[in-house]
Amino acid sequence: MSKQQIGVVGLAVMGKNLALNIESKGFSVSVFNRSPQKTHDLMEEAKGKNMVGTFSIEEFVQSLEVPRKILIMVQAGPATDATIEQLVPHLDQGDIIIDGGNAHFPDTQRRSKELEDKGFRFIGAGVSGGEEGALKGPAIMPGGQESAYKLVEPILTSISAHVDGDPCCTYIGPDGAGHYVKMVHNGIEYGDMQLIGEAYNLLTSVLGADTKELHSIFDEWNKGELDSYLIEITTDIFTKYDEETGKPMVDVILDAAGQKGTGKWTSQSALDLGVPLSMITESVFARFLSAIKEERVAASKILSGPKTESFSGDKAEFIEAIRKALYASKIVSYAQGFAQMRAASDEYGWDLKYGNIAMIFRGGCIIRSRFLQNIKDAYDKDGGLKNLLLDDYFKNIVENYQDAWREVVATAVKYGIPVPGFSSALAYFDSYRTERLPANLLQAQRDYFGAHTFKRVDKEGTFHYEWMKEQ
Amino acid sequence: MSKQQIGVVGLAVMGKNLALNIESKGFSVSVFNRSPQKTHDLMEEAKGKNMVGTFSIEEFVQSLEVPRKILIMVQAGPATDATIEQLVPHLDQGDIIIDGGNAHFPDTQRRSKELEDKGFRFIGAGVSGGEEGALKGPAIMPGGQESAYKLVEPILTSISAHVDGDPCCTYIGPDGAGHYVKMVHNGIEYGDMQLIGEAYNLLTSVLGADTKELHSIFDEWNKGELDSYLIEITTDIFTKYDEETGKPMVDVILDAAGQKGTGKWTSQSALDLGVPLSMITESVFARFLSAIKEERVAASKILSGPKTESFSGDKAEFIEAIRKALYASKIVSYAQGFAQMRAASDEYGWDLKYGNIAMIFRGGCIIRSRFLQNIKDAYDKDGGLKNLLLDDYFKNIVENYQDAWREVVATAVKYGIPVPGFSSALAYFDSYRTERLPANLLQAQRDYFGAHTFKRVDKEGTFHYEWMKEQ
Repeated sequence: MSKQQIGVVGLAVMGKNLALNIESKGFSVSVFNRSPQKTHDLMEEAKGKNMVGTFSIEEFVQSLEVPRKILIMVQAGPATDATIEQLVPHLDQGDIIIDGGNAHFPDTQRRSKELEDKGFRFIGAGVSGGEEGALKGPAIMPGGQESAYKLVEPILTSISAHVDGDPCCTYIGPDGAGHYVKMVHNGIEYGDMQLIGEAYNLLTSVLGADTKELHSIFDEWNKGELDSYLIEITTDIFTKYDEETGKPMVDVILDAAGQKGTGKWTSQSALDLGVPLSMITESVFARFLSAIKEERVAASKILSGPKTESFSGDKAEFIEAIRKALYASKIVSYAQGFAQMRAASDEYGWDLKYGNIAMIFRGGCIIRSRFLQNIKDAYDKDGGLKNLLLDDYFKNIVENYQDAWREVVATAVKYGIPVPGFSSALAYFDSYRTERLPANLLQAQRDYFGAHTFKRVDKEGTFHYEWMKEQ
Repeated sequence: MSKQQIGVVGLAVMGKNLALNIESKGFSVSVFNRSPQKTHDLMEEAKGKNMVGTFSIEEFVQSLEVPRKILIMVQAGPATDATIEQLVPHLDQGDIIIDGGNAHFPDTQRRSKELEDKGFRFIGAGVSGGEEGALKGPAIMPGGQESAYKLVEPILTSISAHVDGDPCCTYIGPDGAGHYVKMVHNGIEYGDMQLIGEAYNLLTSVLGADTKELHSIFDEWNKGELDSYLIEITTDIFTKYDEETGKPMVDVILDAAGQKGTGKWTSQSALDLGVPLSMITESVFARFLSAIKEERVAASKILSGPKTESFSGDKAEFIEAIRKALYASKIVSYAQGFAQMRAASDEYGWDLKYGNIAMIFRGGCIIRSRFLQNIKDAYDKDGGLKNLLLDDYFKNIVENYQDAWREVVATAVKYGIPVPGFSSALAYFDSYRTERLPANLLQAQRDYFGAHTFKRVDKEGTFHYEWMKEQ
């Protein structure tokens, strides 16, 4: 009996769609699922395709070409460890396990080491694009031994999304690098969604825009610099009506955000690495605040906002200012996210290629956008670029848009419309470009109450001052 | 030979000062340090006092009354574990170990369980106030078995700071509760310092205030609602001059903030608990940004800020507006910190008493202030208060100060002065008091690209919409 080129374990929607995607690209696939029903169902659906259903781990492993390539698509966490544990006794040295789930990168680092120590190979691959992406072409971020990646590269690049003929899949770096980059991708996704939400809130709360106007504003925005999947679906969302009530869908949906934790991980890692990831972190907090809906409803009856007058400025001008604030804030968000990847790369020895990462974000995944090409270009010009804001393209936009950005934040603040994303991004820009921040006072305070010492502006060394001594 | 009432292990400055403090309150103390020199030095200094130096763990343990009370003052982390490991073989069932170091609360939870399983008792005590506090009266936040606390209460309450005759020490809750509250205290300290820094920056950058003016402004502020240790030392700092250059001390100190990680822990815990701790987290990020001084200096030569005119408004009015912005932001920061303690209390089953916590913060520790009495009062009125902003006292201030607060943020934004603390606090206030946030759009997006489902405003249940279906 002939052996299959790759196996997929776990046939929930992501695993099933990836298996179908792989087969459709001309590779033979074995599949296995803990409960046999999903395997039966898929075999029914895949009749006539080059796909073999198996009903035990042994049968599954034996059905694969050596070195085996096994893609695990089970729930992140204990289920991944359990699956690996079941596979290992049946594997040969050099076999490759690919974890395509949403693993937290320290788990991938640990698994990578454990499996390598036993003579196996392990790839932690971030897969972005949801169900549809899995079937039609996701962005794939594989991390692990490069030699192992080379063996699965033909399959992974075939099934990934493509932009301008280039696959949205490239080798990211050792051990947890792939899952790390996927995590930051998700953090950036939180940021993008928060910024769109703030623009939406200003357009409705200050300008009173209805969904028809919103549709045409976002449709217009999607033709320019903001051209992206998230703006595109937002545009589309505003055209949808609830069949029951006849109301626009957005108006019947509760304003309580859900989340699966990857945004939180991104912020926690930034805190560990000492990277100021304020914009994305404000997005995570904004989701938390939205989630305590009942508490907010109660608070809204107790706490009063500012007295405001209805907007009397130029409406079109303010809409354009919001667009500029959104784009400038988005640039800051990506600058922070890429700075975090740089810090992680240094910390974990990953040697990340930022231009390549921007490239593969261009297709398949949720944050795909025209703008990622500008990031790629920036890193092509200068691979060692410390911060995206320092690249000419981004510098010029942010400098030129800052007046509008400041106007939007000031207006929001006076109207009592929360814009934590716009304002934290602006505070970052204003801090980052400031030679002297007030942290000298903070260092004086720390030295005063805790003898924590300080450095001086005029000479090297570490100093302490006797603050409580009479002068 | 008579036995001592308590033992102290670890005679670096905090341990030494606590030992001296305990002895000065009439308790007999045994001390031990890994390297004998520190013990010799202290015995020299403490001649004639009721203090016994010991030079082996056995001797130390044997010198104590049963049940033994042993205060560990060594570096947080592995050194604490190593010390506990050395002590344990010599202890009797029911002996009490008190960790007075800056342990991360999950470590305290783990140690508490491990020692309890072996029949010992463990108290994780947060101690705040630095070297001077340790000697003259710190704030103490003990967590662990209440029965164990009762046995050490006479000692701990004697050595703590006192305000209006009340000790700044009270039982906090089980296992890690004490170290958790200490951690949040430190986070709040980060927030307070950041807000003072932003006020300082506005006063110098917008109004051009010199240290003489700064001194008189802060001196004035310290007489009112802002009356606190940190404002007091800030006032004093502005009177200090560098002997070498003759310049004000603040002007010769480098603007690169240090930190020891407890602020970061607070933010990471907030992210785990789902609590929007934006103000303190922005303070942590602001320290990170200050720390990359060289990168900022380089960026300042590349990135231009806004064109601004010199301030033409009423100077005194703006100073008062900054004071109001600072106080309102501080209220939000404490509201967030206390909300986080509430979430932690629910998560870990600690049954924290928020009024008592505010009480013990009033003395000894870095964040001590007049304002903590208002927090105590708020929880006395309503022990189940969900958010400090809902208390009448705080509600009225924030509502009445909001115009000034908004004016200050808008001005800072237009001048290009970063105010991440003022603006994140304001965004929190504006989000918290808002019945409907734009998270409905975010839920639509998540359902669009990932079928994550949503809730509706008009009925119970979980829904999904076929966004890509033609209508």
